[in-house]
Amino acid sequence: MNFPPARILLGPGPSMTHPRVLQALSGPTIGHLDPCLLDLYAREQNLLRRVFQTENEWTFALSGTGTSGMEAALANLIEAGDAVLVAVHGYFGARLAEIAARLGAQVDRIERPLGEIFEVDEIEAALRRKPYKLLALVHAETSTGAEQLHVAEIAEAAHRYGALLLLDTVTSLGGIPVKVDEWQVDAAYSASQKNLSAPAGLAPITFGPRARAAVARRRTPVPSFYLDLNLYADYWSGAHAYHHTASSGLHYALVEALTILLEEGLESAFARSRANAERLWAGLEQLGAPPFIPPAYRLPPLTTACVPAGVDPHAVRARLLNEYDIEIASGFGALKDKVWRIGLMGYSSRPENVQKLLEALKKLLAD
Amino acid sequence: MNFPPARILLGPGPSMTHPRVLQALSGPTIGHLDPCLLDLYAREQNLLRRVFQTENEWTFALSGTGTSGMEAALANLIEAGDAVLVAVHGYFGARLAEIAARLGAQVDRIERPLGEIFEVDEIEAALRRKPYKLLALVHAETSTGAEQLHVAEIAEAAHRYGALLLLDTVTSLGGIPVKVDEWQVDAAYSASQKNLSAPAGLAPITFGPRARAAVARRRTPVPSFYLDLNLYADYWSGAHAYHHTASSGLHYALVEALTILLEEGLESAFARSRANAERLWAGLEQLGAPPFIPPAYRLPPLTTACVPAGVDPHAVRARLLNEYDIEIASGFGALKDKVWRIGLMGYSSRPENVQKLLEALKKLLAD
Repeated sequence: MNFPPARILLGPGPSMTHPRVLQALSGPTIGHLDPCLLDLYAREQNLLRRVFQTENEWTFALSGTGTSGMEAALANLIEAGDAVLVAVHGYFGARLAEIAARLGAQVDRIERPLGEIFEVDEIEAALRRKPYKLLALVHAETSTGAEQLHVAEIAEAAHRYGALLLLDTVTSLGGIPVKVDEWQVDAAYSASQKNLSAPAGLAPITFGPRARAAVARRRTPVPSFYLDLNLYADYWSGAHAYHHTASSGLHYALVEALTILLEEGLESAFARSRANAERLWAGLEQLGAPPFIPPAYRLPPLTTACVPAGVDPHAVRARLLNEYDIEIASGFGALKDKVWRIGLMGYSSRPENVQKLLEALKKLLAD
Repeated sequence: MNFPPARILLGPGPSMTHPRVLQALSGPTIGHLDPCLLDLYAREQNLLRRVFQTENEWTFALSGTGTSGMEAALANLIEAGDAVLVAVHGYFGARLAEIAARLGAQVDRIERPLGEIFEVDEIEAALRRKPYKLLALVHAETSTGAEQLHVAEIAEAAHRYGALLLLDTVTSLGGIPVKVDEWQVDAAYSASQKNLSAPAGLAPITFGPRARAAVARRRTPVPSFYLDLNLYADYWSGAHAYHHTASSGLHYALVEALTILLEEGLESAFARSRANAERLWAGLEQLGAPPFIPPAYRLPPLTTACVPAGVDPHAVRARLLNEYDIEIASGFGALKDKVWRIGLMGYSSRPENVQKLLEALKKLLAD
């Protein structure tokens, strides 16, 4: 097959795939009930627990993309008619609200303009208005590049008002600290292809004791059989009961990617992520395309850069791809023509990639 | 990473992966909106249409396993309260009924004992009893090795009574004829890792005009955002609107596997599948482990073999795996201790694999 050119992937994910991970991906195909794959799941669970910083028994990698993780978390926690509060500060918060509504929840939204984050007291005020089963929140908003701070305080407030906290960690896990147990996050999910730097196709997810209790108390079955976490638990551990035909290659690749991350060490990976992001931010300032998000809650893995006046952001993006094989992304929604989204995630977060992008951007902006 | 041993995969899928497909799998990772990936989708759609023998515009490969294809088909076609008839002649028929029920359908089941199939008049009698929106049926029942014959006549009956026909082709597509348009099947889905012989992780699906009209007439949103086919259509074609982060490697691999299948030609692949199955069946007869399903509707890709009296089927299966690196599977449900399930699918369907299995079984049964 004639492959597309190898790209320098500096968009919002997928990130680049380490050669060891690509090699793992094409390891020997084995069956979904092969004892070797079941052993691999046990290893993968332990690696995922270290990355999520949790001891949660229910920690899996679902056979789907990050969106399947979002849908799984909501579908297992929500029953039709449940009151759900979604704090929306970007596209993925809005997606959480949409999926919750499709599942029949009574969804209330609180919103922050694109590029802002929530203060604890705003969320607390919303929680006070009525009893919610669940508060859903995006930790690292891929559409804006903002990090929602104060997660531990928000979890504490949610619990005080009887709500569970569901945290989207798609763009944070492996790139900035995610402390599921310390912060008392009840459920969280992520994606394999961002800071974990494995191929897309698996969605890490973790459910803590309160979230599991909510699942156990359901009066109705989880509407999705495919994403039913009880069925995952029965397949990954215990009886190893057949549920679906998982892809051994994707699991080899995720295990290898997690191994590489933990060989480096989470703290070192976070420091590398920040150091490379700071190189990028300084360069963008010099180019007149400064970061859109204030430093206090700017995400190292995903930067929104303001498009200089008079520049067509889409033409520049297309030339970066076609002439330099560098992928970056457009803005979302109201930011579509105003920012570029530049990812430095996992194996993409390297000084040489920052340099190549800045050099290319400099030439294109001078044209 | 230390890989498990390479297995000879003769279970119900995954089948073995052709070296060209493994090589494709580890091609360069590209983004989910990269024009090269969007071009690949167009090629993949055409290849899938040829394999499904359809001109349906809505022909995709979903980012999930075959079970996600089953759930997608049902979730897009069913609204809560809809009357659905499921014809159950094995485990996967029962799974169809379970997923339909989770989606809120009023599910009626008609059943055939394991190892049997339906006659058209039985299905017609059930359709006559009340109006159904949908009739769901498994074409090749992986749990028993039976091929449901008469699909065109069943489709005709379903339409006469105002019902759509949904056909599970997980174990038939690419292994025996599946003629979506000629048979007037309204919706069908499959899996990448069986007769198509790609890695697990993608679910081919096709929706015809009647099925699309039913989706267009919905009064409620599809309960699954992840599996909403309108969102797939907007992502794969037209606006190429972001929906999820697909795995470029899985798509390279599926395109390569479909290319290999169509280079051989569907009719040649079906003939090879049958010829190798007949070698297997003859050998099993000689070993005193004859096929469970009568020849008239016995599936070449998946054989259930009767375990000889006095033999522990699970011990033999474990020794095949551990001593010979050959995977076969147990029976399902009531057949658990009575049959082995032996797959000859895609790249696994080769004379040397049949021979290795028969030789190993001969030794183990003599022990």
